[in-house]
Amino acid sequence: LNAHLDCFPCFLRQALEASRMATQDEGLQRTVLQRVSSVLAGLPRGLTPVDMGMEVHRTVQAISGSKDPYRLVKKRSNDEALSLYPRLRKAVDTSPDPLLTAAKLSAVGNTIDFGANPEFDLERSVQEGLTGKFETFDISGFQERLETVSKVLYIGDNAGEIVFDKILVEEIVRLGVGVTFAVRGAPIINDATEEDARYVGMHHLAEVVSSGVIAPGTVLSRCNQEFTELFHRSELILAKGQGNYEGLSQEKAPIFFLLKIKCPVVSHDMGLEVGDLVLRPQTGHEKNT
Amino acid sequence: LNAHLDCFPCFLRQALEASRMATQDEGLQRTVLQRVSSVLAGLPRGLTPVDMGMEVHRTVQAISGSKDPYRLVKKRSNDEALSLYPRLRKAVDTSPDPLLTAAKLSAVGNTIDFGANPEFDLERSVQEGLTGKFETFDISGFQERLETVSKVLYIGDNAGEIVFDKILVEEIVRLGVGVTFAVRGAPIINDATEEDARYVGMHHLAEVVSSGVIAPGTVLSRCNQEFTELFHRSELILAKGQGNYEGLSQEKAPIFFLLKIKCPVVSHDMGLEVGDLVLRPQTGHEKNT
Repeated sequence: LNAHLDCFPCFLRQALEASRMATQDEGLQRTVLQRVSSVLAGLPRGLTPVDMGMEVHRTVQAISGSKDPYRLVKKRSNDEALSLYPRLRKAVDTSPDPLLTAAKLSAVGNTIDFGANPEFDLERSVQEGLTGKFETFDISGFQERLETVSKVLYIGDNAGEIVFDKILVEEIVRLGVGVTFAVRGAPIINDATEEDARYVGMHHLAEVVSSGVIAPGTVLSRCNQEFTELFHRSELILAKGQGNYEGLSQEKAPIFFLLKIKCPVVSHDMGLEVGDLVLRPQTGHEKNT
Repeated sequence: LNAHLDCFPCFLRQALEASRMATQDEGLQRTVLQRVSSVLAGLPRGLTPVDMGMEVHRTVQAISGSKDPYRLVKKRSNDEALSLYPRLRKAVDTSPDPLLTAAKLSAVGNTIDFGANPEFDLERSVQEGLTGKFETFDISGFQERLETVSKVLYIGDNAGEIVFDKILVEEIVRLGVGVTFAVRGAPIINDATEEDARYVGMHHLAEVVSSGVIAPGTVLSRCNQEFTELFHRSELILAKGQGNYEGLSQEKAPIFFLLKIKCPVVSHDMGLEVGDLVLRPQTGHEKNT
């Protein structure tokens, strides 16, 4: 998925928000913004939004001097989601179809996104997520695939959201399938890293690995060798969120994408509406059909 | 009023929208966006949003080759507002306070703004404008000043909106006060020019003059000599919209600002909320107090 023109103003807005988290110094915030503008001015064509996000947010980090502008925001998201955990757990435990409910909640958790979607309302999203319609949500296809494998590679997306992922991981493990949970290799926007996985207790349920990427999504050419090998030998991959979709949408692999659509670029590419909660197999891959 | 950091992503969004109106060629749209990014990267500090808007939109015009990207949008706004005119006129004619109702409608007309506020809903705004609260709306101060002068300099803002201005101009003229109506010197965003004034019949009611500015707001140093002299000898000036406020907020002159607040930059500067409809005298000017 190539970056669209809409990505330009969106990333400049993200750069402004990130610079304000990184420093209180307005002069430095302005320097960050103008340096990011200069990066945008020189970007070559054919990049994915993930590549573009990496260039932009690494510029913010370099110029502001903050290696992790979203650190506080990530901690707050984790804490807020952990406080919801008992309610989410109960919703799944009392559901007639626990796997479906857990998958829906995992998609709802993808609302937590300080890149594409900084003004989210988590409380409302959870309400809607438990009662809303899921038009494009192939839970039976996913469940069928799940029954044929012994292990799933679950590629996480954001902090906070990772608590919702935990609920789904618990259901998958309960079905006797092992989970390897992949996180980013370094802080980028509010994407989950090993620190977040540990903070929410993911390592008690799954093997936590770093994909090695320092971009807000999974682009295989930027992953470390261990992850790339793991990816290629995985029989079922669950990729969360827009960034992983953007980076993997062209890969021939047994992937299911699970996400909330949060911008016109992904909406257009998937042929679905902004706001949709989606579970969809990679099209054109034989194991998925 | 100096441009804020929020102006950077806002103007890049405007540049994208404008480039899409200017050309269907996506490659050229991208060139426009990257050239505007480069302009933003090099902007000196201390500019007003009006100056910044001029730099951005003139870059769009130059690179896209379109001297008036918003031409069609302006025509549509004029036509839509003209179709509302009989209803607006009736609302004023049947009002217990016609000047107040006309001034409120003029502020509502300022909703039509393809720069700061491209997703407006005019129909809804008119409804709300006729029934809504106007906390900061000094109609008695304005009326008192109006009774002491023989002529008003009315500085217009946008196409479409100019039909709402016409309603207020009619009320002012009915009170025996003459009106000089100023428009921009050349097309910039959807700001009204002499062509729009003529299209909606403003020249039958008022003397229409060009301020000579090719920026989306009135900055005196960019106005022609005739307008500047007129400005300085005017006993009462009515300045419409954010752009005129941004450019004139520091001028010691008998100005009343009439506008809808559409962005956090102006909201912060005026100490009022986004969405407020405002009629307020220039503070610190002796004739206004």
